[in-house]
Amino acid sequence: MAAPMKNKRDNSKENDGTSQAAKKLKLATDLHSDVDENVLHDFDGFKVDKILSESAESKSLFLLGSFSESAKKAVVLLEKKPFLSDDLTLKSLMSKETKLKLGLKNDIYGAYESFPPVEVNGVKTTVIYPATDKHINKYKSQVLHLVTESYKDYQNITLPYLNEQDFSIQWVYNILEKKAESEHIIYEDPDPEVGFVLLPDMKWDGQKIDALHLIAICHKRGLKSLRDLNKEHIPLLKNIREKCLEAVKTKYAVGREQLRMYFHYQASYYQLHVHVTHLRNHAPGIQTEKAHLLSDIIENIELMPDYYQRKSLTFALRESDGLLDRFRKAGKVE
Amino acid sequence: MAAPMKNKRDNSKENDGTSQAAKKLKLATDLHSDVDENVLHDFDGFKVDKILSESAESKSLFLLGSFSESAKKAVVLLEKKPFLSDDLTLKSLMSKETKLKLGLKNDIYGAYESFPPVEVNGVKTTVIYPATDKHINKYKSQVLHLVTESYKDYQNITLPYLNEQDFSIQWVYNILEKKAESEHIIYEDPDPEVGFVLLPDMKWDGQKIDALHLIAICHKRGLKSLRDLNKEHIPLLKNIREKCLEAVKTKYAVGREQLRMYFHYQASYYQLHVHVTHLRNHAPGIQTEKAHLLSDIIENIELMPDYYQRKSLTFALRESDGLLDRFRKAGKVE
Repeated sequence: MAAPMKNKRDNSKENDGTSQAAKKLKLATDLHSDVDENVLHDFDGFKVDKILSESAESKSLFLLGSFSESAKKAVVLLEKKPFLSDDLTLKSLMSKETKLKLGLKNDIYGAYESFPPVEVNGVKTTVIYPATDKHINKYKSQVLHLVTESYKDYQNITLPYLNEQDFSIQWVYNILEKKAESEHIIYEDPDPEVGFVLLPDMKWDGQKIDALHLIAICHKRGLKSLRDLNKEHIPLLKNIREKCLEAVKTKYAVGREQLRMYFHYQASYYQLHVHVTHLRNHAPGIQTEKAHLLSDIIENIELMPDYYQRKSLTFALRESDGLLDRFRKAGKVE
Repeated sequence: MAAPMKNKRDNSKENDGTSQAAKKLKLATDLHSDVDENVLHDFDGFKVDKILSESAESKSLFLLGSFSESAKKAVVLLEKKPFLSDDLTLKSLMSKETKLKLGLKNDIYGAYESFPPVEVNGVKTTVIYPATDKHINKYKSQVLHLVTESYKDYQNITLPYLNEQDFSIQWVYNILEKKAESEHIIYEDPDPEVGFVLLPDMKWDGQKIDALHLIAICHKRGLKSLRDLNKEHIPLLKNIREKCLEAVKTKYAVGREQLRMYFHYQASYYQLHVHVTHLRNHAPGIQTEKAHLLSDIIENIELMPDYYQRKSLTFALRESDGLLDRFRKAGKVE
């Protein structure tokens, strides 16, 4: 099992997973590999020190604490699970065993709290023990800051920052050169100017069509993000749009009206790539301050060839993001 | 209690709640008001006919079924609840009573399923009984269609459709004229050209700051949506932006960097209004095919005064949406 909630494709500053941070984490892990091979059977003796973060949306609760027998810290990640809807679960869920407590009743509407049998109401639980400070920081809720970047800011702040970072995108080149993950490729247009490789995003297990999430990575090197796009890239963008839609239709029988195609800005790695998700997939990363529809990008450039070299772009950065520091130092953020 | 999950402000076609539909529903409710004043204590005898919809994201499951003693249909809405994090709940949750079942263990990482005591793991449950076909349709999962509307399509398809609909926005005028909800108003600029009223959205309970959701409604009548905006509205847009940010800072101590200000397109009612949400609020309606950042709108118009009379706009419509029908009839959607 890899570190939970870590996406190996996401090697940017946005998670804490720069390759260096990952190496350090690996090292910390190795140092502790002699400790606690024990398996937990319950939370007996667990003492909660602190709530690291909680979310009403994902129904999660991240705790820092310790087991009584040890001064070492444990991080416990709790997340409510989606309902299973197989016959056996439904039979148990919708039975005499599920007790109801009335909240309000008005005419045909009854609002209750129900208490299903324990076994059909499990909670996804990850225990990291012993946890390092790095783990603790990772799961602490972080303040987000909305930053508006003019093109000048891009040139003076963002681009130098990206160039200084040691964001290896060798893994992307490996995919493009078929040295890795070639078995995952769904479709390829090998053209060096307008071509791309289409494959599933790591976040998608390939099972539920509603959760479909693919990535189309351009073959052409040197295009970092939508900031680099102008009218000479219209053929590339239209080629990706049309051929991806066709490939998804063929492979997954999902039509163009059910697909959302977009770029992230900021991106999590700086080799131009398009996200393709099912319209019903409300995954993180589709919010308006992060996702830019491919069709909007094409039309903006058609309306104004240097649109992305003129327009300010607004995005959220986490408190720990090095880029936020740079915007602060430049006096662009409070 | 109002009809569950119904937002009284949302009187458009997007939910099924046009004012007429609401009236019909009210009527149906009245007709059934003599039936079943009984309170449920468990789901004994409940037979599941059908899963209406389920969501892994919101961890919900909507069921259609019946109680054995009756041929009448019941709709049951189940939704996992966020964790409570008060001391008493934590004590019960992180105890010997919560059993753990190991999934995978690798070094310091252990993935489990945990089974908390029944009483701290309740499920939000709404029972609608007897349920009408209208209820059943409302909670059935609906196919979404992505539609791209040119300005010509707006003039020829969308605008005539909106004008034909009997979307009463009297309730909006009531707010603007202080005939209703005046006690909720957080801030007002009474200027007839650039003024607005700021108040909490119905979806926000006013409690958790992370979930902050306010609405700024323009005083100026006749501005339906961002389609109507051009350079003469820049003072209005900038006034809303600056004064809202100031008001939120004063009232809630939340700074401009933590706030997302945006318009919906399509909107749920056609009197121009801006949404103000906390950046951490990942509420429905912030996705890129629906939400348009106020700052982007201002800048697009500054770059191109007739941007919103030239640019195509892409949005998702539900299968049941009358507007989708019109786009279909015009041959604009498959």
